[in-house]
Amino acid sequence: MIRIMAFSEIAYEVSDRVATVTLRRPERLNAFTHTMRAELIEAFDLADADDDVRAVVVTGAGRAFCAGADLSGGGGTFGRRGEGETVNGAPRDGGGTVALRIAGSLKPVIGAINGPAVGVGVTMTLPMDVRLASETAKFGFVFARRGIVTEAASSWFLPRIVGIAQAMEWSATGRVFPASEALEGRLVSRVYPPGELLPAAYALAREIADNTSAVAVAAVRRLMWSGLSAASPWEAHAADSRLMAELGGAPDAVEGVTAFLEKRPADFPMKVSKDMPPGLPSWPDDPYRV
Amino acid sequence: MIRIMAFSEIAYEVSDRVATVTLRRPERLNAFTHTMRAELIEAFDLADADDDVRAVVVTGAGRAFCAGADLSGGGGTFGRRGEGETVNGAPRDGGGTVALRIAGSLKPVIGAINGPAVGVGVTMTLPMDVRLASETAKFGFVFARRGIVTEAASSWFLPRIVGIAQAMEWSATGRVFPASEALEGRLVSRVYPPGELLPAAYALAREIADNTSAVAVAAVRRLMWSGLSAASPWEAHAADSRLMAELGGAPDAVEGVTAFLEKRPADFPMKVSKDMPPGLPSWPDDPYRV
Amino acid sequence: MIRIMAFSEIAYEVSDRVATVTLRRPERLNAFTHTMRAELIEAFDLADADDDVRAVVVTGAGRAFCAGADLSGGGGTFGRRGEGETVNGAPRDGGGTVALRIAGSLKPVIGAINGPAVGVGVTMTLPMDVRLASETAKFGFVFARRGIVTEAASSWFLPRIVGIAQAMEWSATGRVFPASEALEGRLVSRVYPPGELLPAAYALAREIADNTSAVAVAAVRRLMWSGLSAASPWEAHAADSRLMAELGGAPDAVEGVTAFLEKRPADFPMKVSKDMPPGLPSWPDDPYRV
Repeated sequence: MIRIMAFSEIAYEVSDRVATVTLRRPERLNAFTHTMRAELIEAFDLADADDDVRAVVVTGAGRAFCAGADLSGGGGTFGRRGEGETVNGAPRDGGGTVALRIAGSLKPVIGAINGPAVGVGVTMTLPMDVRLASETAKFGFVFARRGIVTEAASSWFLPRIVGIAQAMEWSATGRVFPASEALEGRLVSRVYPPGELLPAAYALAREIADNTSAVAVAAVRRLMWSGLSAASPWEAHAADSRLMAELGGAPDAVEGVTAFLEKRPADFPMKVSKDMPPGLPSWPDDPYRV
Repeated sequence: MIRIMAFSEIAYEVSDRVATVTLRRPERLNAFTHTMRAELIEAFDLADADDDVRAVVVTGAGRAFCAGADLSGGGGTFGRRGEGETVNGAPRDGGGTVALRIAGSLKPVIGAINGPAVGVGVTMTLPMDVRLASETAKFGFVFARRGIVTEAASSWFLPRIVGIAQAMEWSATGRVFPASEALEGRLVSRVYPPGELLPAAYALAREIADNTSAVAVAAVRRLMWSGLSAASPWEAHAADSRLMAELGGAPDAVEGVTAFLEKRPADFPMKVSKDMPPGLPSWPDDPYRV
Repeated sequence: MIRIMAFSEIAYEVSDRVATVTLRRPERLNAFTHTMRAELIEAFDLADADDDVRAVVVTGAGRAFCAGADLSGGGGTFGRRGEGETVNGAPRDGGGTVALRIAGSLKPVIGAINGPAVGVGVTMTLPMDVRLASETAKFGFVFARRGIVTEAASSWFLPRIVGIAQAMEWSATGRVFPASEALEGRLVSRVYPPGELLPAAYALAREIADNTSAVAVAAVRRLMWSGLSAASPWEAHAADSRLMAELGGAPDAVEGVTAFLEKRPADFPMKVSKDMPPGLPSWPDDPYRV
């Protein structure tokens, strides 16, 4: 069964326990708008709430992934910001609200970057777990060429993903670069011929869905991303200890170990919607959400 | 002179100023137990206290490095946790107590991963300084396949070592992968034919032992690991300034500079057991140790 | 027009909107002294204050980049420390004062490492944005061979640039290693034949100067480096939101977007000397500066 939810600027589809979020303004190279922003956040809320979703693949319709902010408003585009929510009196950066929502996802997120990913089109992918790219993809942290700053919390994500030297070279030049440079700089994990990109993304999603406990993966995702942010390994140890105490004797662990010993596939009974342990690291709390 | 200390599930041997810790349950692929846990911590206490130890090599007896937690207790294995110590009311994660002890070591630690390193068998290596692997090694962060979470504070260590994208791909899939993938993903520094692994590990240990001040290396190890955890470079600068004031005029610095100028090997007089400067970064304080 | 400022141990030259800082004690392999330290800090103050400087290239005169601390004072070199400023009662580490000044630069900094870079000669390059090297460069974190610790806040910078495993291997052995090992370990971004190093450094500086807003690049540099230090992505998001609110409607953004839409080079009107937005991340505040 395939379930499709029609949004106006994205598509959301669930098939075989994998959700696909497709940026869908192909006539505008999927340029980012406030509508797309709100729909992306809603799509990740749906994925988190749906136990039939074990992983999320994000890709673009047509030849682009996302060409960045829609600049059809002209020179004043970045001066008109009115999303309502604020941070310390300033309007919230829209790309950041998407990036932080993706970072807090309970389901693993795979970016399948099928074409140009520029500006917020690339920064929105940074909180995804794995980025795979087509040979036809191009990338650009072009903000300084437009007179603005790297957004979407990319100053936190990017240097942790590719290192500060690579982050600064791309951000200070605003260069647009090919998939090969993205791979060499470790922005993407692997590059594929165009026709092989989505199959590779789904194969990775299947590897997760077919072999692991959904509750364990959700807890691990929170652990790892908050661990990247933790002040010390002692915090990680405290979180591990709480979660191992909660999950070590729970049904998924009993099934996981038993299935392994019996050399058969595990059939995990627990659900993310009702069986998540307390004491998860605090990543998803958004201190600025109104 | 070779000194060997017999533990029940590990071996500890000191030869030519290098300690070797060998996981030694080869009939169980060196599967991890509470006994092994306690013995590993004791071995690192011994190494720290012994001025004749300049570096520690950790390897496994037989064909495996460590197959992970001993699952002979069946499906309830991870539900029975009773090490006595607790963190915020939860039993402490056992792998974490080992990992944090290794992270606090005053002597550099080299993992010589001779075969499969799975579960806690791989997470225990993350706080080692350098991981070298045999071509026959395999790795797996298999926790989510058993219904549990990545432990041993690996949510802090792993994304800092291999990046969050690689950390999430391995943790969310629970995939078992070969040494070549570990090398490509920078989990290990180098891969060797099986017969060349231990010689390479000892050559690296010798490079340290033959050329450097033990006190300086111990201080540097604390600086670097706590620096990875420091909130800002100002903290590192404050620690540097204290340590340079303490060590800059001390006998090892005088000898180190003099030997360099005289183009001869240095013979450093200071000892870790009695000459460590005050003001070391606070890494080794374990806030949860009873 | 080329403007040259003669210092005693460095040269500072501005040409075509790029400043070049040259370590200039070639008869001593550009060994680091207290004079050089003070002059380097002054040079970066000059570059920050000069709107005609869009990027800074740092290189060495003669065959070396910098051979490290000048050891002509003999065995007591590191015991005589008297720069006046202190941190918690200890004399400030001199290399650290340079490193932290470079880290706080408003202009991107490119290291053109033309020959041996050892001790403080390499640690001073860590807060530069991009390190390029000649095939004739050599590197060494040799501190432990001299009985002292890695300085210049390198315990904060180095493991974030090359990873903790590589940082510890180089720091614990004190090994001197060639450019190829530096490239493989990601200490440098690219390696060039000697005659191609400076042209490559200037080409990168030009790519920045010719295409981007100086104010945006300065803000991005602060964002990225402080983002590497930020406790969480929420901090980055708060900074982004403030800066996008300040810069999104400012003249450079209007020009940047308009020029892009008109497919012509942008001519950015704003100046770092007078148009930097408030609310920049706090990286440059030096809590220890007297």
